[in-house]
Amino acid sequence: MSLSEPLKTHKATLLAALEGDDARLHGLLPELRSADIAEILETLVEDDQDMPQALALFSRLPLERRASVIGHLPGDEQLAITEALDDEVLLAILEEMGADERTDLFKTLGDDRREALLRRMARQEREALKRLASYAEGTAGALMTSDYVAIPAGLTVSRAMMRVRQTAPDAETVYQLYIVDPDGRLAGTLSLRQLMVARPGARVDDLMIHEVIHTRVDVPQEEVARIVARYDLLALPVVDAERRLIGIVTHDDAMDVVESEATEDIHKGMSIGALEGGVRRVPLWSLYRKRVFWLVLLVFGNLFSGAGIAYFEETIAAQVALVFFLPLLIGSGGNAGAQAATLMVRGMATGDVGIKDWGKLLGRELLVAGALGLTMALAVAPIGVIRAGEAVALVVAVSMIAIVLFGSLLGMCLPFVLDRLGWDPATASAPLVTTLIDASGVVIYFGFATAMLSTP
Amino acid sequence: MSLSEPLKTHKATLLAALEGDDARLHGLLPELRSADIAEILETLVEDDQDMPQALALFSRLPLERRASVIGHLPGDEQLAITEALDDEVLLAILEEMGADERTDLFKTLGDDRREALLRRMARQEREALKRLASYAEGTAGALMTSDYVAIPAGLTVSRAMMRVRQTAPDAETVYQLYIVDPDGRLAGTLSLRQLMVARPGARVDDLMIHEVIHTRVDVPQEEVARIVARYDLLALPVVDAERRLIGIVTHDDAMDVVESEATEDIHKGMSIGALEGGVRRVPLWSLYRKRVFWLVLLVFGNLFSGAGIAYFEETIAAQVALVFFLPLLIGSGGNAGAQAATLMVRGMATGDVGIKDWGKLLGRELLVAGALGLTMALAVAPIGVIRAGEAVALVVAVSMIAIVLFGSLLGMCLPFVLDRLGWDPATASAPLVTTLIDASGVVIYFGFATAMLSTP
Repeated sequence: MSLSEPLKTHKATLLAALEGDDARLHGLLPELRSADIAEILETLVEDDQDMPQALALFSRLPLERRASVIGHLPGDEQLAITEALDDEVLLAILEEMGADERTDLFKTLGDDRREALLRRMARQEREALKRLASYAEGTAGALMTSDYVAIPAGLTVSRAMMRVRQTAPDAETVYQLYIVDPDGRLAGTLSLRQLMVARPGARVDDLMIHEVIHTRVDVPQEEVARIVARYDLLALPVVDAERRLIGIVTHDDAMDVVESEATEDIHKGMSIGALEGGVRRVPLWSLYRKRVFWLVLLVFGNLFSGAGIAYFEETIAAQVALVFFLPLLIGSGGNAGAQAATLMVRGMATGDVGIKDWGKLLGRELLVAGALGLTMALAVAPIGVIRAGEAVALVVAVSMIAIVLFGSLLGMCLPFVLDRLGWDPATASAPLVTTLIDASGVVIYFGFATAMLSTP
Repeated sequence: MSLSEPLKTHKATLLAALEGDDARLHGLLPELRSADIAEILETLVEDDQDMPQALALFSRLPLERRASVIGHLPGDEQLAITEALDDEVLLAILEEMGADERTDLFKTLGDDRREALLRRMARQEREALKRLASYAEGTAGALMTSDYVAIPAGLTVSRAMMRVRQTAPDAETVYQLYIVDPDGRLAGTLSLRQLMVARPGARVDDLMIHEVIHTRVDVPQEEVARIVARYDLLALPVVDAERRLIGIVTHDDAMDVVESEATEDIHKGMSIGALEGGVRRVPLWSLYRKRVFWLVLLVFGNLFSGAGIAYFEETIAAQVALVFFLPLLIGSGGNAGAQAATLMVRGMATGDVGIKDWGKLLGRELLVAGALGLTMALAVAPIGVIRAGEAVALVVAVSMIAIVLFGSLLGMCLPFVLDRLGWDPATASAPLVTTLIDASGVVIYFGFATAMLSTP
């Protein structure tokens, strides 16, 4: 990983300060964010040689900084650091962390280490951690934190305010408050802003919004992020099957989901499976596995193109010059089709396009693809004339329009068909669409050639 | 646009309530978010026939609801609604809106309308609006709002708290406060949480964080969003060249940027230019224009494949069976190459991969692509034997390894080369990479064929 220039300077300063006393090191800290220290630490952990420096730096940070810095590290680096810490220190750090980050860190540890740590925890703490760790990855449950401010229904504004002050240091956010009934069910919500301007003697029940936007613990994380984005929320409360409030997902975690889901969609669009961690750090074996499946499948898909060619072998043998235009025609169809598929898949992922829009979009794509095909036919026709005469040029131009039109419609419709079949529309990746269009393009091109060139 | 089932129900209820009095309509509103009403309104505006209903619904909403709903509408729908409003009503709505959304709405209006509105505004208001509207699209300036809480340096905690209470209804967020010196320069920041637990007589200068993460007004919006995400900020202060505080970018707007930048990157990856608005609503002409440029350019790129084929016409004529494997080989190379390019481009966009990582990543890609090529060669070899004998099968297998390896390396390196040349690495789109690999694949395949098949 390469650091930005300011971070490089900070790294040098930090490492130099390690030679001095704690006061010198701690004097630097106000200028440095935990995310930055984590990134500097990451570059040290990556290189075995620098590992002692990484540990020295980490262990000399104040406890709350250690908790916040380790929360910003990726899983592998977290593990590398925790392996060098004894149980007592690690427990203290865990205690200092937010509940969601504590759970994530806990999940990276080996079974033995987890058991050892759990044994040393107080029962309540242990149960809470085990529960948070039990929710399936990629759901609201795995994303949420239990550090929220819950206000019992019936409290006055001034009592609620006191409660906020008390929980301020621990809660992930104190700016959105959740009012719960005696059974722990989510009854309403109130912003701190509303609380601040309210009459101290008023009751929260009379001020709160009853219709709280919330989500269920088993809802997929992309759906959670979409709700947070749609309603501009600071935090989204998460409830269990009995509508009991069990956590909140904060805006910053939702934003990370938007980013990582986009990466996953981009990779899927090129038939790459979901990677754990960035391309720079994922193990080679895993990178191979995530790419090979579709590549090999598409080798067999491409056999249809071969079969098409074999079927028209006579036409080709009679006029080898036709092969000159083959990559151009199937390539163009593939490009146009992949564009159409990509526009649909992304539209469906962001919620801009629904299955009901299919008819209208089909009409639009027909017009746009027709215009594209015509433009490309006009671009290629002169080359056809120069290279192989007017007859072949006409075949090439007509084929271009037909292939681009067919390819675009296929690319546009495929995501809808997949969605209807209950598959992820993103399966209509560029490589899949391109392969399908290659095969059809061969048939269209040589079909036109056989029909149009045999007569004279 | 297709509404979700709950929204359909809400739409029916709202339209039914239009028949009754205001009390009935307003009774429904607490249940409905402005984002939802906007979406319902959008479906009405889209259909000319339903436009009167759209206007009836909109004009019967309370003023603050109208301001918030119109802020959630896309530009075209905003324009359709505002055209039906007289200046006085529109002015009242504008006044009620947040400064950032007011500016966005203002920008959608025609020149005459803008002039008419500006003439009716108070001078201070007019200048503020003109200034916000003057920042370039896609920068921090165009994204920010001027509704933030600025606290003059030197204030006590209790005075600062009073200031927060006063500005609470207008500010976009009151949870992060910015302390400015007498020249308006950003001097520090303080969260409301910190202020609440502080001693009332303390001075904000002694509590505030001096090293404020901030950005310049001309910084691109993707960079702004990255800072907000990296440091988990509620809002990012924006300063001018003299470090004077002029606005803040809030977390919800930054999240929208992450989403729209991802869409832009996904489209770029398939050689589609940036679309204004979703695929469903963008004008056909614009959709054509954004797709045609690269498609036509790549038609000419594909001529190199044709030229390669022409060069080897003798080899092909002597053994037409070779053409059977051509789409398969160049397709596979293109797929592997597009995967490699996509991994790099996305890694560079998220900041996971930097130009300094090039060497390490090259080694990794060499290994992975070698393994992929070998696997695909093993998959295709039996088909080669069955179809065209062992000699051709060997040519096909060797070509497969060479093409996948070459394609992957090309796909991996191209984004770095483009970046070095000062271009957007995303220019290394799947269609471009595929076209380049098609041409090289033709030469590699027929080159091996000519060399290996001519001897016996």
